[in-house]
Amino acid sequence: MKSKKYIWIHVVVALIVSLQLNAQEKSEPIPAVGLAIKAGSNFERIDFNRHAVGENDIEIEILYAGICHSDFMVRGAHQHVVPGHEIVGRVTKVGDKVTKFKKGDYAGVGCMVNSCGHCEYCEAGKEQYCKERTVFTYGSPDRFHDGQITQGGYSNIITVSERFGINVPKKADIKRVAPLMCAGITTWSPIKFSDVKKDDVVGVAGFGGLGHMAVQYLVDLGAKVTVFDITDEKETDAKRLGAERYVNVATTKDFSNLSDTFDFIISTIPADYDPMMYVKMLKMGGGELAFVGLPPNSNISISPFVLQSAHRYVYGSLIGGIPETQEMLDYSVANNIYPEVEIIEAKPEEVDKAYEKIDAGEVKFRYVIDMRTIEK
Amino acid sequence: MKSKKYIWIHVVVALIVSLQLNAQEKSEPIPAVGLAIKAGSNFERIDFNRHAVGENDIEIEILYAGICHSDFMVRGAHQHVVPGHEIVGRVTKVGDKVTKFKKGDYAGVGCMVNSCGHCEYCEAGKEQYCKERTVFTYGSPDRFHDGQITQGGYSNIITVSERFGINVPKKADIKRVAPLMCAGITTWSPIKFSDVKKDDVVGVAGFGGLGHMAVQYLVDLGAKVTVFDITDEKETDAKRLGAERYVNVATTKDFSNLSDTFDFIISTIPADYDPMMYVKMLKMGGGELAFVGLPPNSNISISPFVLQSAHRYVYGSLIGGIPETQEMLDYSVANNIYPEVEIIEAKPEEVDKAYEKIDAGEVKFRYVIDMRTIEK
Repeated sequence: MKSKKYIWIHVVVALIVSLQLNAQEKSEPIPAVGLAIKAGSNFERIDFNRHAVGENDIEIEILYAGICHSDFMVRGAHQHVVPGHEIVGRVTKVGDKVTKFKKGDYAGVGCMVNSCGHCEYCEAGKEQYCKERTVFTYGSPDRFHDGQITQGGYSNIITVSERFGINVPKKADIKRVAPLMCAGITTWSPIKFSDVKKDDVVGVAGFGGLGHMAVQYLVDLGAKVTVFDITDEKETDAKRLGAERYVNVATTKDFSNLSDTFDFIISTIPADYDPMMYVKMLKMGGGELAFVGLPPNSNISISPFVLQSAHRYVYGSLIGGIPETQEMLDYSVANNIYPEVEIIEAKPEEVDKAYEKIDAGEVKFRYVIDMRTIEK
Repeated sequence: MKSKKYIWIHVVVALIVSLQLNAQEKSEPIPAVGLAIKAGSNFERIDFNRHAVGENDIEIEILYAGICHSDFMVRGAHQHVVPGHEIVGRVTKVGDKVTKFKKGDYAGVGCMVNSCGHCEYCEAGKEQYCKERTVFTYGSPDRFHDGQITQGGYSNIITVSERFGINVPKKADIKRVAPLMCAGITTWSPIKFSDVKKDDVVGVAGFGGLGHMAVQYLVDLGAKVTVFDITDEKETDAKRLGAERYVNVATTKDFSNLSDTFDFIISTIPADYDPMMYVKMLKMGGGELAFVGLPPNSNISISPFVLQSAHRYVYGSLIGGIPETQEMLDYSVANNIYPEVEIIEAKPEEVDKAYEKIDAGEVKFRYVIDMRTIEK
């Protein structure tokens, strides 16, 4: 009896100690390294901390991070920011209340790491429109963690609320998953929102990281795809991915044969351009133009709107919510739809070089950084 | 036998003569009078000709013509133009192949008098988008009649292809029908296109001729209507017509409580304004803004479109097709939905005065000209 009682006491004490250690361990910030940039300088390796793993959080060892054109915006930041919102990795720790993940699972993280969770948009799974403001993956004040500015995925590790982790199937081609988290969902969401169907006549304006994902989803749906871009060289790739037609808008003089012919056009163009050209190509009485690329000055002038775009819909679309990101990822993996990627090492000079190539329009189609190669 | 034969010959001869007379009568242009305007002058009474009544045409004695704000555009015309695209009258003659009308029927004519009839838009009853160009009621080269410029409804008579005549039920309040032909259909069409339903939260920006029709249709559908305009005086009328809320946008400083709250907003504003104010009021993830008013410079600048208007739809809408105009008219008459009108006489100085009042924003809500009072 006595020995049994002692054993029980030992067990209970051990349990308490272990729980305390566990709690202590979880409440401590987690050291991380990342590749950061700020105004006037190149990429640098920095040390920083991730928030501790709370009861609803997961910790992910980052395997790959995609380079998205919108990462370029942090080049004007006043302080060092680690960009990267196309993240995939392996779960290394889970909070006590986590149910979606267990240690060892693959997880993806996209453009968001938190939101209020209870407003009408969060409840509807449109966390990107959170009424109390979405916490974006980098450069965003994180009100759930002392208002610290979030740091992105060009890093070895990240901690995130499990709600914002995406389950990545084991069979996924893990090297190519990261860009799905932004380029994938950003194009998938409006394609679904506009309910593109088989045989619809559709266009993809801008054939880069986003555009080449849009083409793949649209071809997969059975739509008839035209790709618009400004060089002749992209025609081969566009047709290889299933586009029926390629239009070099820089050299084409007359677009009148395209007027009123498209059910849907997605514009992924991240530069200034005249959107009316594409508006006029929409079928009157229901054609839809989705803007997902962000021109530098963020202005789109529609002219003369009313008369020329009668019953043609124009809308902007911002990434996608978490449930539809999961849906997109499951669908992409099941149907073998992936970005075309070039893997680079996690060295500052490599990332600098990649940015130069992207600036020059010389990337096909997405750089992905192998984050395991970062200097620890 | 002989006498019978003679009788038959007489009958046949009489028939031939009558048919020829009839054909001759129908092939001759029809003299008309109208109130016309051109750049730098006031309204004047002019004599002109309508095209003859072809086999598919009807002739209408015009009883009433509404004054629409867009009629003002002809004030810059180089030659005399008779404006007016809100027309109701009585059928006085029908072509041999006409089936929709018989002599004595009431008929309405709106913004269009002809189109190709065989393109995909005409076949779908969206004649306003005719691929070979719609012939509009005034100021439009009429390729079906020697390219003559069409003249509108401030006139005593009009001839028109029966396809573009709208059947007006006998029980209609005929004095108030004319504005339905433009203000009615222009607001009805996007309300139907956007599928506004009971309890939807909707807004009407601009509470004039079009706006007060939009309010009535929206209230009738059971939607919760907010009216936006720039004077306090319009509040009483807006609420009398069923609006729940009135917002004076000229004096309101903070619109943040209206952000992300509307399923649908129709902008009937015919002046320059910042559409982003209304875009921001739309619910994210599906709110729709329909532009039907035409700002003078026809430019609408959406800024910063992509981020702020995520999944909010913006579109322009131009009147409506003939089948939906008939549907709108039948519904309006059956449900006693009419514009509020002030009847004026068809004298040049009366119309000049009405234009001044409209310019000054002092009309409630539509001037209608009694065309029977025009000097013959």
